[in-house]
Amino acid sequence: VSISKQLASIKGLGKGSDMEKAIATLALIFRNFSDPDGKLEKTTAKNLLQTQFRNFTKGQETKPKYKDLLSELDEHTENKLDFEDFMILILSITIMSDLLQNIWGIEITE
Amino acid sequence: VSISKQLASIKGLGKGSDMEKAIATLALIFRNFSDPDGKLEKTTAKNLLQTQFRNFTKGQETKPKYKDLLSELDEHTENKLDFEDFMILILSITIMSDLLQNIWGIEITE
Repeated sequence: VSISKQLASIKGLGKGSDMEKAIATLALIFRNFSDPDGKLEKTTAKNLLQTQFRNFTKGQETKPKYKDLLSELDEHTENKLDFEDFMILILSITIMSDLLQNIWGIEITE
Repeated sequence: VSISKQLASIKGLGKGSDMEKAIATLALIFRNFSDPDGKLEKTTAKNLLQTQFRNFTKGQETKPKYKDLLSELDEHTENKLDFEDFMILILSITIMSDLLQNIWGIEITE
């Protein structure tokens, strides 16, 4: 089922702003890949980073900060990630990504 | 300029997955509303919560946790929010929202 169809079936989201749909999308992706206990396996999380977050992880594999983040994931997180853990993980990767610099740099021409 | 047009002009995002587009959307919204120094005024942040995040903040105004979050914003954050502060703020609100429960509850029918 596509994320846009799932978004349409969320009670209380209504039409929703871009900002609301973006957060709801991340919550749906977390939910679609999580176990019945509502948590995400670490291996599934790593797989998501490789398959769904490639444009942000690209070129970071060799950076010490990125390696640290992945080993922290292995060592310090409990067995599975909750939604907050997942969001902090992708936020951390986003902040160190080269792609974020491209986002800050685009021109707004109205 | 619409977010989708802005997404299309980000170098290195390519077609992008739903997950990547969601994060890029949040970064663009932050950027569109931030000052030339790349930071978001607190009043602008609160305004964004009221106008663009209403479906998540709805019904929370009277909850002590939500009030605490907003007074923390006033007291402890430095004058302006960076992208990380902004994301942590909306993540905190999302986690305490009633809407997130609706997201966890939708049925996936394939």
